[in-house]
Amino acid sequence: MNRVEALKQSVLDGKRIDGLLVFNAANQIYLTGVSGETARATLACVMISKKGENIIYVYNVNYEQAKAEGKGFRVELVKRREDLVAQISAKAKSLNMKNLVADFLSVETHRLLMKGLHGQARLEMQSNLLWEMRKVKSEKELEFMRKAGDLTSIGMKAAYETIRPGVKEIEVAAEIEYAMRKRGGWGTAFETSVASAARSAFPHGGCTARKIAKGDLVVVDIGAIYDHYCSDMTRTVVAGKPSDKQKKLHGIVKKAQFEAFKTMKPKVEAKKVDAAARNVVAEAGYGEYFVHGLGHGVGLEVHEPPTLNSESKDILAVGNVVTNEPGIYLIGFGGIRIEDSVLIQERGGENLTNGSYDLETAR
Amino acid sequence: MNRVEALKQSVLDGKRIDGLLVFNAANQIYLTGVSGETARATLACVMISKKGENIIYVYNVNYEQAKAEGKGFRVELVKRREDLVAQISAKAKSLNMKNLVADFLSVETHRLLMKGLHGQARLEMQSNLLWEMRKVKSEKELEFMRKAGDLTSIGMKAAYETIRPGVKEIEVAAEIEYAMRKRGGWGTAFETSVASAARSAFPHGGCTARKIAKGDLVVVDIGAIYDHYCSDMTRTVVAGKPSDKQKKLHGIVKKAQFEAFKTMKPKVEAKKVDAAARNVVAEAGYGEYFVHGLGHGVGLEVHEPPTLNSESKDILAVGNVVTNEPGIYLIGFGGIRIEDSVLIQERGGENLTNGSYDLETAR
Repeated sequence: MNRVEALKQSVLDGKRIDGLLVFNAANQIYLTGVSGETARATLACVMISKKGENIIYVYNVNYEQAKAEGKGFRVELVKRREDLVAQISAKAKSLNMKNLVADFLSVETHRLLMKGLHGQARLEMQSNLLWEMRKVKSEKELEFMRKAGDLTSIGMKAAYETIRPGVKEIEVAAEIEYAMRKRGGWGTAFETSVASAARSAFPHGGCTARKIAKGDLVVVDIGAIYDHYCSDMTRTVVAGKPSDKQKKLHGIVKKAQFEAFKTMKPKVEAKKVDAAARNVVAEAGYGEYFVHGLGHGVGLEVHEPPTLNSESKDILAVGNVVTNEPGIYLIGFGGIRIEDSVLIQERGGENLTNGSYDLETAR
Repeated sequence: MNRVEALKQSVLDGKRIDGLLVFNAANQIYLTGVSGETARATLACVMISKKGENIIYVYNVNYEQAKAEGKGFRVELVKRREDLVAQISAKAKSLNMKNLVADFLSVETHRLLMKGLHGQARLEMQSNLLWEMRKVKSEKELEFMRKAGDLTSIGMKAAYETIRPGVKEIEVAAEIEYAMRKRGGWGTAFETSVASAARSAFPHGGCTARKIAKGDLVVVDIGAIYDHYCSDMTRTVVAGKPSDKQKKLHGIVKKAQFEAFKTMKPKVEAKKVDAAARNVVAEAGYGEYFVHGLGHGVGLEVHEPPTLNSESKDILAVGNVVTNEPGIYLIGFGGIRIEDSVLIQERGGENLTNGSYDLETAR
C-alpha cells in the first residue's frame, strides 16, 4: 500500500479533502496493482478515503480478478452503472465525506454522480491528481521500463533487418512485433508505424500494405509494453542508397536530438530542452517543418507528463522518463524523425532505447 | 460525404440543433475518413453544421494528414487547446449557432467550452449521437469486418497449432499476432489473451510468461483489426487430454452458444438472445458462474452497441455485428468461454469468425 499511503499523505492529510475517486485506468493499475489493459478500465472506480477502508468497485465480470489481485483493498461488487453511483454516494454519506476529488469524469457520469450525492458532498476535478507521483519512476518501475526499452530496441533491430525494396510496410510491422513478443513483450504501446515515401511526412503515418520502394524514406515508430510500462522509439531509414538531401536532413535531425539530449538534466526547464533541438533545425532552415513538440513523458501511458515543447511549464527531475524526438516533415518529399526514450538521472540523460542511427539499412 | 449527409438528415434537419461537435476518435474516423488510431483522437474536433461548411479542427502535428485525407471538409489549424475553444466559439457565433450537440466531453473540456461560448449557445451531450448509424454496417464496412474475421480465424488456427504443455502463454500470443499480421492485419483490436489454468477463470485474464502445463484449460481471446474494423473471437482448449469435467463444461458452453446463435435474427430482443444462452448454462446448474453478458457490438470499436445482456433494451437489426460469447468460470478450477462475431442477416446470424471448436489441440 505504499503508493496509496504516499497519495494520502500528499493529497489528503491536512487538507479538507475527505476522499478520492479514481476512474482513469492507468491510475487504477498504479494504485491497486489489479492488472488490466491500460486503455480500458478493468475497475469501475477506486475510492481512497481519509478515514475508512480503500475500496475497489468492480463489475461482476472482473470481480474475482480484483479480489485476487487488489491486495489491501476492500472489493465491492457493482451490478450496473446506476448502482455504482448509489454505492459511492452511500459510502460517502456513511463516512461523512464532504469534499471529494475525482481524477477524470465524462460530463454524463459527472452528472449522475452529482445527482446521486444530492448536495451532501462537493466534487472537484483534478486530472493531475496522480501525476506528481507517476512522473517520478521508482526503481521497480524503471526495471520494467528498461525491459520495455530493451524489447523496443530489439524490435527496431528487426526493422533494420527487414526493410528493403519490395517489402510491404505491414510485413515489416509483423517482424518487429514478433521479435518484441518472442523476447517477452506484453504487446505494443501504440499502433506500430512503418510509414514510407509520401506518408513518412505525416508524423502519425501508421502502416499500410504498400511495398517499400528503392530510395524511400521509411519512418519506423514503435514501442513495446512490459508489465504495463511503455517505451517509444523512432528511426528513419532509406531502402537502398540515401540521396544527398536525405543524408543532409537526417544529419540535422540527429544533431538536434543530440543537442537536446545534452541539456537533459534535473532542474532544467522542459522548454529549454525543446529549444535546444528546435534551434538546430531552425538554423538549418527547416524550423517550420518541425511540426510538433520535442517529446512527452512515458510510463504506464505512452503519452503522459512531463511535456517537452516550447510552451511547457514542466521542469525535469530525476526519475522522469521522456521522449526526445525531433523531426523534419516535407510534404511530397518525406519525413525524418529520430526518437529515444530518456531517463533523467542526477548526472544527465540515459537512453532506455538503444541501437543504430544509420540511415542506410543492411540491404 | 454520404455519412455526413445521412447524419445531418437524421439529427439536424427539421430539428432545432444547429451543429454537432464530434470528439470521439472512432466517430471522427467514421465521419471524416482521416486515419488514426481509434483509441486516440487524431483530430481535435469535427464540427458538422446545418448551414455552412463542415470543419476538421486539428493540431499542427496532424494538419497535413487531415488536409490530405479529410475530403469534403474545411481543415483548420489549432495551435493549443485554448485556441480550439476560441475557434469553435467564434465559428458558432459567426454561423449564429444557438444549439450545439457534442458526442463526448470530459468535465474539464466541457467547462472550457461553456466558458468560451459564454451563453451564446446551448451545449447538449448526446453520447449515442452516431450509434444508430454505426450499429448498422454498410456493405463496405462488412467487407472490412469479414476480412478482420478471417484474419482472427487465422490467428486462432495458429493458437491451436502452438498450444502444448511447456509453451509460454506469451509465446502463443506471439504466434497468433504474427499469423494475423503476416496475412495483412492492421494490429490487435485489444490485448491478446492466452490465460491458462487458474487465470482462465478470470474473463480478462490477459497473458503472462507462465508455461502452459498438461491438462490446463487455456482461454484464447483474440481480435484482428482490418482497415480500422475489429473482430473478436474466443476458444478454450486443453493442453493434452481433457478431463471429463472439462469436457462436460465445454459441452454446456458450446450448446449455450449454439442455442443463442439460433435466436439471432432481425427484430429479436437482445435480452432474449442472452436468455437463450443463459438458460442452457442455468439448467446445467452453472448459472451463477456465467458472470457477464452474452455479447456486445463490434465495429470501429471492439465494444460498442448493441449490447446483449439480461437488461438490454436493444433489438437486433440487419447489419448489426455482435459477439456471442457464453462462459463458465470456476475459481480454482478454470474457465471456459466460446465466442464468435456474428453478422445479423435477414435470414439469421452468420459467423464472421470461423474454425474448430475442439477442446483438444493437435498436440
